[in-house]
Amino acid sequence: MPRQKDVIVGMDLGGTSLRALVVDGRNRILGEAKTPTKVSSKPHKLIAQVADVVKDAVISAGLDHQDISAVSIGVAGAVDSAHGIVHEAGNLRWREVPLGSELQKLLGIPVLVDNDVNVGTVGEHALGAGRGAQNVVGIFVGTGIGGGIILNGKLYEGCRGAAGEVGHIVLQVGGPRCSCGRRGCAQALASRSAMERDVRAAIKSGKKSLVLKIMNEHHRKRMTSGIIVRALKQNDPVMTKVMKRAQHFLGILTANVVNMLDPECIVIGGGIAERLGEAFVRPIRESAIKYYLYKRDTDRVRIVPGSLGDNAGTLGAVVLARQRLGNL
Amino acid sequence: MPRQKDVIVGMDLGGTSLRALVVDGRNRILGEAKTPTKVSSKPHKLIAQVADVVKDAVISAGLDHQDISAVSIGVAGAVDSAHGIVHEAGNLRWREVPLGSELQKLLGIPVLVDNDVNVGTVGEHALGAGRGAQNVVGIFVGTGIGGGIILNGKLYEGCRGAAGEVGHIVLQVGGPRCSCGRRGCAQALASRSAMERDVRAAIKSGKKSLVLKIMNEHHRKRMTSGIIVRALKQNDPVMTKVMKRAQHFLGILTANVVNMLDPECIVIGGGIAERLGEAFVRPIRESAIKYYLYKRDTDRVRIVPGSLGDNAGTLGAVVLARQRLGNL
Repeated sequence: MPRQKDVIVGMDLGGTSLRALVVDGRNRILGEAKTPTKVSSKPHKLIAQVADVVKDAVISAGLDHQDISAVSIGVAGAVDSAHGIVHEAGNLRWREVPLGSELQKLLGIPVLVDNDVNVGTVGEHALGAGRGAQNVVGIFVGTGIGGGIILNGKLYEGCRGAAGEVGHIVLQVGGPRCSCGRRGCAQALASRSAMERDVRAAIKSGKKSLVLKIMNEHHRKRMTSGIIVRALKQNDPVMTKVMKRAQHFLGILTANVVNMLDPECIVIGGGIAERLGEAFVRPIRESAIKYYLYKRDTDRVRIVPGSLGDNAGTLGAVVLARQRLGNL
Repeated sequence: MPRQKDVIVGMDLGGTSLRALVVDGRNRILGEAKTPTKVSSKPHKLIAQVADVVKDAVISAGLDHQDISAVSIGVAGAVDSAHGIVHEAGNLRWREVPLGSELQKLLGIPVLVDNDVNVGTVGEHALGAGRGAQNVVGIFVGTGIGGGIILNGKLYEGCRGAAGEVGHIVLQVGGPRCSCGRRGCAQALASRSAMERDVRAAIKSGKKSLVLKIMNEHHRKRMTSGIIVRALKQNDPVMTKVMKRAQHFLGILTANVVNMLDPECIVIGGGIAERLGEAFVRPIRESAIKYYLYKRDTDRVRIVPGSLGDNAGTLGAVVLARQRLGNL
């Protein structure tokens, strides 16, 4: 039996869905709840929805809210984790929202808040593909590219809590425009959005591709990871070429990280990595090694796909909460 | 009076000169010796020369070699600091030289070896422009661009001892060829060598410049920091333009480091920074801030010129030796 007071609710607060896992002191999942995110101009409405999902998850675990030590949430955005404030979360249309204190009022349980990719990296380090390494960098490729850094076994957040933004490392001065407004960021060259932009441009210029047909068949307006994988399986020439180019850039990004931090492990996460695993990571690794300054002992820097998939963030949030609250 | 057993010899082993400082437990300089480096195909000859410089410095301090606790050397190259081995030092034409053990045999004193830019960063952190910060990145702009990283107050070396190679962060995929063989590295865009290449190309294409004349007057074959400063003072249009471009790239490099590590302090070191100080760093800072992802509290990330000049490496080597040997 788990000691009930070790039980923590880990939560993923994304623009698409809210997902909560109830996790015991041995990191076993006791319960779960999930619902589509209702983005609203009033943050308190979404915070009330978050509280409901937490309650549902606790009920699904057959527990009571008194059994829960803490709720720990990963949010896609700029977060002040010391004060539980979300400075900015574009997907949620939030600015300066005191999520931690507001949710704590509703639930009567300590609430911790951190960046979604930071908790994802903590998850992969503690329980996933980065286990056993002291220094790990997570690179999460999705709509954007996010990152997290573990140094000496602990999450490294930097002096403003802004560390790990590998997606905004400039790889190509004057390159394509990034959603952040600058040009040539890794995110503007190798994220899912960048790939979609390149696929659409190729189709517009007359190249033949199945991507739009597959999107229609699956009622998708965006080129999701699922669509990408289907197009690659059908050997779509445009998708294949665009993916190869993105992997080339992701390799250079990875090499920049290695030349800078020489970590023991780089975990490539996100939807595409989850679906394709080693087939996604192998070309990234091959491109990266070409750009290493030190060619010695390259095996000591492992470049691996994440192994926790969707659970990296929620489990990571739980692990981080345990570190922050001390051994409960 | 310094306790004699705290006295350490810090040394800079460069391709141009050997320089040793004798430093007491309060980091006061007691003695000094310097000589041009005699690069030879036989490493043991240069190691004997290093031993002589150490002895000269100790004599200049009025001390005996029994008064010295350790010799600590910074070498421009890839170093295994745990074993005192220089894997590769291009300027010295060294490969796999066991400098630590060989020199220890000659001197009968413990010898520590590290990368020159790592010890320079340690120096600026402990005694120079980075004092008081927990996380510091040193960016040294010279013939190449080197870097060092201090995290949580300590030198961070990475799993292969290869961390901090900021000069080989790719800023422009497919850009100009770097001395490392790859294209578009920061070093190929903004080092002194890159500036010299661009100045010579501009002159070749017909642009008027005083740089070659100034080099002749000072009997220089390369465009040293001194030449650069003289040309800028005379408002040489080619030098001014090339410098502006290099500062732009150094700003983007700095922003890449900030977006990745969010440190409290970035110290810009090397000969140009030593000579021009804030006039060199201000445009770098302005370019960097434009490329920050997080625009909040940008003042908390200080970008400053180094303050120790030539002594950063030698003093840093002493500080690092003290950390490694424990409190003597």
